[in-house]
Amino acid sequence: MNPSFQQAKARGRNQSIGVYECEVKLKFRLIEENLTSCDREDLLQTLVDAYAYGSDEYLESVDSNVEVQVLGETEASPKMRRQLMRLRNSARTR
Amino acid sequence: MNPSFQQAKARGRNQSIGVYECEVKLKFRLIEENLTSCDREDLLQTLVDAYAYGSDEYLESVDSNVEVQVLGETEASPKMRRQLMRLRNSARTR
Repeated sequence: MNPSFQQAKARGRNQSIGVYECEVKLKFRLIEENLTSCDREDLLQTLVDAYAYGSDEYLESVDSNVEVQVLGETEASPKMRRQLMRLRNSARTR
Repeated sequence: MNPSFQQAKARGRNQSIGVYECEVKLKFRLIEENLTSCDREDLLQTLVDAYAYGSDEYLESVDSNVEVQVLGETEASPKMRRQLMRLRNSARTR
């Protein structure tokens, strides 16, 4: 592989990495035990884990909606921008 | 354990199992590669899996909302009602 092709490949890989703003709405029915007695964070984790596991005899998806858009890098947090720079640098030196 | 206590325990366990209608809304920022080129189902799975994995240098939660309510059993699908009956019967004979 010649160096210019390698650089082009690295640039292609770099450009595809980005920060996305994501919105997910899930509506589903779930067979569970005592769901209303969990605290909010536990409840959220339980529900997201159950949904991630997939539909089966305990879970039926009713509706879902997903929206993603590329976020301008200046809008991302400093922590995410640092991570993005690390990823791009590591792609460049690969 | 006497039989009546065992029955009461089984009843208690039975009552807590139910069908819940769940709504989850997630808003977050994610560092990813080529997210917009996935098809809708793959995208949804990728996002839910990423969120289930938790916040780290690749994901920042912006907002989340969760609502659950107990669903009347007659509103649940036949499949879920059968599963609920199986669970209650197995709890009863345990």
